Amino acid sequence: MKAEILSIGSEITSGKNLDTNSRWLSQQLAAIGIPVGFHTTVADDLADNIAVFRTAIGRAQLVLCTGGIGPTLDDLTREVVAAVAGVELIEDADSVEDIRKMFESRGRIMPERNRVQALYPRGGEILPNPIGTAPGFWLNINGTIIAAMPGVPREMFRMFTEQVLPRLRQLGVTGNVMLEHKLNVFGLGESHVEEKLGDVTRRGAVPEVGITASDAVISLRILAQAETEAAANAIFFPVEQKIRERLGSLVFSTGDEQMHDVVMALLKQHGSTVATAESITAGLVANSLAQVPGASAHLLGGIVAYTNEVKIRELGVPAELIERHTAVSEQVARAMAEGVREKFGSTYGIATTGYAGPDGGADGTPVGTTFVAVAHAHGTEVTSFVWFGSRTEIQSRTAKTALNRLRLLLLG
Amino acid sequence: MKAEILSIGSEITSGKNLDTNSRWLSQQLAAIGIPVGFHTTVADDLADNIAVFRTAIGRAQLVLCTGGIGPTLDDLTREVVAAVAGVELIEDADSVEDIRKMFESRGRIMPERNRVQALYPRGGEILPNPIGTAPGFWLNINGTIIAAMPGVPREMFRMFTEQVLPRLRQLGVTGNVMLEHKLNVFGLGESHVEEKLGDVTRRGAVPEVGITASDAVISLRILAQAETEAAANAIFFPVEQKIRERLGSLVFSTGDEQMHDVVMALLKQHGSTVATAESITAGLVANSLAQVPGASAHLLGGIVAYTNEVKIRELGVPAELIERHTAVSEQVARAMAEGVREKFGSTYGIATTGYAGPDGGADGTPVGTTFVAVAHAHGTEVTSFVWFGSRTEIQSRTAKTALNRLRLLLLG
Repeated sequence: MKAEILSIGSEITSGKNLDTNSRWLSQQLAAIGIPVGFHTTVADDLADNIAVFRTAIGRAQLVLCTGGIGPTLDDLTREVVAAVAGVELIEDADSVEDIRKMFESRGRIMPERNRVQALYPRGGEILPNPIGTAPGFWLNINGTIIAAMPGVPREMFRMFTEQVLPRLRQLGVTGNVMLEHKLNVFGLGESHVEEKLGDVTRRGAVPEVGITASDAVISLRILAQAETEAAANAIFFPVEQKIRERLGSLVFSTGDEQMHDVVMALLKQHGSTVATAESITAGLVANSLAQVPGASAHLLGGIVAYTNEVKIRELGVPAELIERHTAVSEQVARAMAEGVREKFGSTYGIATTGYAGPDGGADGTPVGTTFVAVAHAHGTEVTSFVWFGSRTEIQSRTAKTALNRLRLLLLG
Repeated sequence: MKAEILSIGSEITSGKNLDTNSRWLSQQLAAIGIPVGFHTTVADDLADNIAVFRTAIGRAQLVLCTGGIGPTLDDLTREVVAAVAGVELIEDADSVEDIRKMFESRGRIMPERNRVQALYPRGGEILPNPIGTAPGFWLNINGTIIAAMPGVPREMFRMFTEQVLPRLRQLGVTGNVMLEHKLNVFGLGESHVEEKLGDVTRRGAVPEVGITASDAVISLRILAQAETEAAANAIFFPVEQKIRERLGSLVFSTGDEQMHDVVMALLKQHGSTVATAESITAGLVANSLAQVPGASAHLLGGIVAYTNEVKIRELGVPAELIERHTAVSEQVARAMAEGVREKFGSTYGIATTGYAGPDGGADGTPVGTTFVAVAHAHGTEVTSFVWFGSRTEIQSRTAKTALNRLRLLLLG
């Protein structure tokens, strides 16, 4: 079985909107072993739509279609599929009621033109849409299955998962499952990670391990294809072991878990607290931690210490330390971390200082030079990095480095 | 003239990569008045590629194609276009030299298989690629122009701009220019903005004004189509005037300028400074301002006051005020703003407090309840909002509200 994904609408062919539905559907089909041969996007033109559906039916056995089922005159998909199938459109009484209720729940009366959304090609089935006014439909045309869904992503995600996927499984057209497992790495460049991994990321290795880098986080994606989910997991296990052996604590999380999630979980586990003294990151470290629900029990507070005066007055950094070493120095980072830890009485004190650009130090210190310090009961650790990138990239990488240093301390 | 955009590669049909090239090219063509009828993506399969190119040539007069011109066996575009045109592939000696030099500049020797990248269909023209190893090509097949470009976005952007666009202009196939002008609005919901604008956003109005909302910012996009850029600007002017008359200071910026950019520019203009006292936003207000280059002259610093203890000790909020009104109250927001302004000696003091979730107040105050205060020489203004959304959405909207209040004060 080969699939084609259609997305309908001039808002996409004109470049106004980016089509992300087709990629998501491709990923879903890959996960159940159905290969996708084509994505097609077509503007809201009747003849072009009919031609595109005819072509799709001729070359694919499954056609997933998003968009074109709204209430306006531009929404052609119902009409087009009925024409291609050579059947008439009929009204689904339940859907009319559902749409009417959807409007009523928003305190409105259903406009008469929305009634057209309850039409579907005879011989097909309605796919209910519990969170929007546009139901989808399912139809078999000469052995090719067509599933028409809304263009609104969250409505489409739900309709695919609840309506289309179970029908595909029931038909027995699904193949091997294809699963992805993601390990996230911080603290080393992409090429160094690749070097450490050696044969693991070799092209053609089974399972395949892909490397992507985003904002200094390196993600390793392990792809496994197997008959069952358990069998796929059995494929992941040894390669994940090997990666963890080679990279150790450089691996900070799996899946979509972010650095601040991991750090907050560790703080919770240890019953520890933290306070922040931020110059270059100006609140980003504190705000990242505050994104995690329940953060208030572990993030006591912080100082945004953008000026030397604030560093001296609020954090107790000795003025002569700044004079001697400048504010962007190992010594000042250390004093800031210790100062904020003392001030807030927290288990850990985090400090950041550096040049985010456009200017570096008056003494010629380059843009991107940063110091990160973490103070704790047994001492203070300071790390220095020179980052490349834009102002916000340098700030974000410095904040992540600070959180990563705290993570490593919490891991012991 | 109607255009079709092809993107070639199994990494897209499989869902591994998101195709952003097609949208970008659609926008570029829209800007020069060439409508796009279709986007097609096809996996790396010879027969499918040939069929897709044949279909495209049959229904479009311009086919822009990205991907499939690398050095590997999967890269089929050269071969496919030659087959569809019924011509042979020939080698471009200059391109072989260019590719060899590209490798040498990276300290490497050109692998023999890269030589295939210098091939192009007889009768066509090579499109040089100054920043990559894959040159593109341009060919006319029975009146349809094909321009094949690399899939790597930055290489494609440059080849389109420097090679394809001038050729299209020279052919005289470009139509009216289509320009977009964007006005950004904050402080009112989408439906209220629409109500205030009345006929301006009516469907079918000329120029067309589209409304989109993202993270509480409402953007009004005015589209103008005209023979020249000057003529398009003349279309923008009266509708922009009308929008500004009706929305006044709700319009905070144009184009891609963000709230913190506008606020920092106003602080600069007035020679004013600011300090922040952040509970619910935990550093987000300070960090937003710090994203603007030169922020250090106007952002003196801030306190992340996540706990009551910090509010009392660092900001001088009276303990009995918190006891009587809770930390999420108009009174405490006011005391925080005044406290931080005094502590840092800044022109303005900004404070935020509220419930980001998952829990609201012990007294039943709902999640999303927020207070924002701005203290200045002549008093303190406090605003309250109840936001819906996720924890990070509530934090982000509260930070924007705080910056917007400061903006309105700076505007006088």
